[in-house]
Amino acid sequence: MKFARFKKGEAILQGVVTENGIQQINGDIFSDFEHTELIHAIDEIELLAPLTPRHVIGIGANYVGKTADLPSKLPAIPVFFYKPVSSVIGSGAPIVIPDQIKEVKFEAELAVVMGKRASNLSKDDVTSHIFGYTVANDVTAPQLFHEDGHWMVGKSFDTFTPLGPYIETELNPDEVNVEAYLNGEKKQDSQTALMIFSMRKMIAYLSSVMTLEAGDVILTGSPLGAEMMKDGAEINCKIAGIGELPNPVVSYQKSAVAGHRS
Amino acid sequence: MKFARFKKGEAILQGVVTENGIQQINGDIFSDFEHTELIHAIDEIELLAPLTPRHVIGIGANYVGKTADLPSKLPAIPVFFYKPVSSVIGSGAPIVIPDQIKEVKFEAELAVVMGKRASNLSKDDVTSHIFGYTVANDVTAPQLFHEDGHWMVGKSFDTFTPLGPYIETELNPDEVNVEAYLNGEKKQDSQTALMIFSMRKMIAYLSSVMTLEAGDVILTGSPLGAEMMKDGAEINCKIAGIGELPNPVVSYQKSAVAGHRS
Repeated sequence: MKFARFKKGEAILQGVVTENGIQQINGDIFSDFEHTELIHAIDEIELLAPLTPRHVIGIGANYVGKTADLPSKLPAIPVFFYKPVSSVIGSGAPIVIPDQIKEVKFEAELAVVMGKRASNLSKDDVTSHIFGYTVANDVTAPQLFHEDGHWMVGKSFDTFTPLGPYIETELNPDEVNVEAYLNGEKKQDSQTALMIFSMRKMIAYLSSVMTLEAGDVILTGSPLGAEMMKDGAEINCKIAGIGELPNPVVSYQKSAVAGHRS
Repeated sequence: MKFARFKKGEAILQGVVTENGIQQINGDIFSDFEHTELIHAIDEIELLAPLTPRHVIGIGANYVGKTADLPSKLPAIPVFFYKPVSSVIGSGAPIVIPDQIKEVKFEAELAVVMGKRASNLSKDDVTSHIFGYTVANDVTAPQLFHEDGHWMVGKSFDTFTPLGPYIETELNPDEVNVEAYLNGEKKQDSQTALMIFSMRKMIAYLSSVMTLEAGDVILTGSPLGAEMMKDGAEINCKIAGIGELPNPVVSYQKSAVAGHRS
């Protein structure tokens, strides 16, 4: 099932994707919801990020180029980082380049949406705690990383975490390619098998540090090939089975004129 | 006014502190709430963290020992970091030392609770966007920092962010001493005037990166004097005008036996 969140007029609604459009649901997708009879045509709504996450957690440099490059021994402490929920936008919304810089990096990723409380999970228990999967673009301004390795500022600007288009609950995360197209040209295309920390190991580790809950979103790292994007670029992150996450890139100045940023 | 959040029986309630106990309020403290006639005696309730934050944002190494040591020029990029909301506990709840280590560090801090949406604030506009202030203990396991400077794991364990006892809305943040007592012995005691990034500059900078909202909590850094704590320690962080935030420290093993961690 594909879950969507969207805007129609001033209303923010939730639904599931059907052949005829998005069928509205009411309630909490993680606990209790009901289907309505209302179907909304895709061209009459504005897709939003498919959820408002509780946390957004990312992992640094988690892909190799080919299976032979996978390390035999994993680092003791993975490079995890947080992104703020204020950085989340949906499919189609503009990514705004911060005022003080000229370009930002795209990073297409498989995003995991947790479905229930998870503490000290074993690797084998991870998938039963997952609600579904979506596509993420972990937009980054490496120019604004602190020289001592703190990524917070460079990861945290408004619009830096496109998520969407939908949460797919039926995906097999082991048979997924993560792709990114910059201005129509393919730049990233890797199987999730090329992750250094596998999705299950990463989430098991995280759950040994913190109690995860429904609505926590974990970005599983980006394949080789990420590049910088300037004003006017179009980035499209894709995972077959989930969908496409296209976003235009605009300068801070143009964004301010267009009123994208309030 | 001092706002409290507390547990009575199985109910999680909110209130304001009065001479006779905590007067229950209903509603959202940031937008619309009403006072009730119900007064709860302090010894009949369990204090919780005074809010469930939307984000918890900290700043690294932000105090000097004396005014003369304040730098004439601020770093271009402050060392900000996030702590997860899963790490938040209230006054009196045990701080649990993670399984793989023997001790954790206390860091007493003045915590700012934002009251409204804030984007691109000037320094002079900061306080009008603040709801109130509470005491924080930014518990840290520096042994679990990544060697490349990423603090996420060492800052993120469950119980690592005691907050409380109350949110005080009337505090003058410029006339505050931040104190910590380890097993009754004073270890930290500094005026907020010894901050490198002042509270206003720090929040103005943050609001240029991300849109802050009501419920965002900003930890403003810890005075010199923080130390490690072992199983059995008692840490008490204090700010006159807000109150005391005492927490016992227990090993993971004892915590598991006591059922503190599920």
